[in-house]
Amino acid sequence: MDEFSLIDDIVSGLGEVARAVWVDVGPGDDASVVRVKPGASVVSSIDTFSPGVHFPTQAPAEWVGYRSFMGAASDLAAMGAQPRYALVALSLPDADSRYALALCEGLAEAASLCGMAICGGNLTRAPLSITLSVHGEVEPGQAVLRSTAQVDDLVQVSGRLGGAAACVRLNQFEVASPLREAYFRPKARVDLKETLAQAHASIDISDGCLQDLTHILRASRLGAEVDSRAVPVADGAMLQDALWGGDDYELLVTAPDVLPGFEVIGVVSKAPGLRIDGQEALSSDGAIKGYDHFRL
Amino acid sequence: MDEFSLIDDIVSGLGEVARAVWVDVGPGDDASVVRVKPGASVVSSIDTFSPGVHFPTQAPAEWVGYRSFMGAASDLAAMGAQPRYALVALSLPDADSRYALALCEGLAEAASLCGMAICGGNLTRAPLSITLSVHGEVEPGQAVLRSTAQVDDLVQVSGRLGGAAACVRLNQFEVASPLREAYFRPKARVDLKETLAQAHASIDISDGCLQDLTHILRASRLGAEVDSRAVPVADGAMLQDALWGGDDYELLVTAPDVLPGFEVIGVVSKAPGLRIDGQEALSSDGAIKGYDHFRL
Repeated sequence: MDEFSLIDDIVSGLGEVARAVWVDVGPGDDASVVRVKPGASVVSSIDTFSPGVHFPTQAPAEWVGYRSFMGAASDLAAMGAQPRYALVALSLPDADSRYALALCEGLAEAASLCGMAICGGNLTRAPLSITLSVHGEVEPGQAVLRSTAQVDDLVQVSGRLGGAAACVRLNQFEVASPLREAYFRPKARVDLKETLAQAHASIDISDGCLQDLTHILRASRLGAEVDSRAVPVADGAMLQDALWGGDDYELLVTAPDVLPGFEVIGVVSKAPGLRIDGQEALSSDGAIKGYDHFRL
Repeated sequence: MDEFSLIDDIVSGLGEVARAVWVDVGPGDDASVVRVKPGASVVSSIDTFSPGVHFPTQAPAEWVGYRSFMGAASDLAAMGAQPRYALVALSLPDADSRYALALCEGLAEAASLCGMAICGGNLTRAPLSITLSVHGEVEPGQAVLRSTAQVDDLVQVSGRLGGAAACVRLNQFEVASPLREAYFRPKARVDLKETLAQAHASIDISDGCLQDLTHILRASRLGAEVDSRAVPVADGAMLQDALWGGDDYELLVTAPDVLPGFEVIGVVSKAPGLRIDGQEALSSDGAIKGYDHFRL
C-alpha cells in the first residue's frame, strides 16, 4: 500500500473525528483551518511518544494511540483550556497499514472522549514514533500557569496516583488489572476546566507528583510542605509509586481553597525547597532525592 | 547533560525567537498561549523530518534545522496564511547537546526569516527526527485551498524549479554550489501572501511540480495541460528535475490572471487527466508516469 492510499484509509478511519463545527478545512490540504472564538487565545502543546521510552514495544497499537493522545491532551487540561483539535505526525518503519489503522483507532477514541478533532497530520517512513500537537482555546489571561502559585496555597491533586508507575514496576503489561488500566487508559482531565478557574497554578502529573510539584515551585520561586499520609494512592500501588512515579495524567494544582474533586496533600511556603513529612526532598542542586532517601 | 538543562540551553539559544508580541506564554509551561487577531482562523500543519529520508544523515545540524523549518513553514505559505508560531518536537538518540543546539540555531534562523516564534517544544531520547507544527492565521474563508481551481485558470509557479532534485541526483551535498544552496537553503514563500489573495488554488511544491499539480487537480476534480518549454528550470538542473523532483518549496497556483512573480506553465481544463506537451502523464490508476515515459 502506498503512502497516499494509507493516508486516505486513515482519514476514512477517523470518520467524524476528522470533523468538528469549528474545523473549516480538515485533512487533505496543505494545512488545516480552524475557527477560534473571537478574542480567545490559542493554547498549543507538542509531545512525542516512542516505543521503549513512552510505551512497551509490544503494546497493542490501539492502546498506544489512545494513551499517547491522552498524554498530549493532558497539557491542555493543565492549562484550563477548552480542547479543540490535534495534528498527528506518524513515523512508521514500513507500510504496516494494520498497525497504523489500529493506532489511529486509539487516537480517535481518545480524541472523541476529549471532544477534539484530529484534523491534520503527516506520515513518514522512519522508526516508529507518534508526535501529537494539541490545541485549545482560553479567554485572554485565563490560562492557569506553573509560575503563579502563591504562599499558603493548598497543594492538591485530582485523583489517586501511582497506578501507572506500579504497572511499570511490577511489569503488569500482559495481565488485565486495574494497574494496566491506569497505564494504558489514562484520562486527560479536560473535565476539570471550570474548576481550574479557581486555581492559582496547575500542572499535569506526567514526570511524577513530586517532580511536577517542583516544576511549579521553581517557576513560582516558592517552596512547599507535603504530608505523605495525605497523598491518595491508587489500588495496588505503593506510596513511592504515587510520589515518584510518572504517567498519572491527573492534575496537581495550588489554590487558596480546597477544590471540588481534589485532595489536599500539602501547602505552598515562602521558604524554598520541598519538604516531605518535614524532611527536605531536594538535593543541593535542586534535584529531587530518590525514594530510597526516605522511609515512607 | 540532563534533559531539563538541555531544554534550558535550547530556550536560551532561541533568544528573541522564543518571543513575539503575539506570544503570551512561551516555552516552560505545560503549553504555549498565543493571541490571535479577533475573528481570524488558525491555520495549522505538522511535518516530520528524518535522516536518510528527508536529509542526508551526515548533513550539518544547522542546515538540517533550517531546511526542516522552511519545509514545514512552506505549508502556511501555500495557504496564504500570516505565519505566527511553531512548536518543535526533537528526538535525539543521545544527549548530544552540541548537535541539538546547532540544529536549533538553524530552526531559529529560518523562523526569524519567516517572522515566526518558536514558542514550545518537546525533547525525547529516540532515533533522530524533527517534527514541527507550524501555525498562522487567515481571515475566515480566505485560506487558498487545493480544491478550488477553476476551468481555464492559468497554472503558474513562483520560481525556478529542480535545483534541490538536481543536488540529490548529482549527489552534490559536499560541494558548495547553487544546487546545494537550493537543497539546504530553500525559502518558504511566505512573502507571497498578498499575491495569493488573487489565486483560486494553491499548493507548495514538495513532492514535485507534476505530483503537486495532480493533488490540486484531484481535489478540484479537473485536469490540466502543461507546456514543458514554459517550466522555469533552475541553473544546473534538468527539466526532469523541475517536473518530477521534489523539495523546491516554491508555490504552484492556479489563477485566472498571471500573478506578479509567477510564471505560467499550463492551463486548467475541464477534461480530466494531465497532459504534458499533449501527452497523457497519468497512468490509468491516476499515478504520475515517470520521466522515462517522456522524451523531454
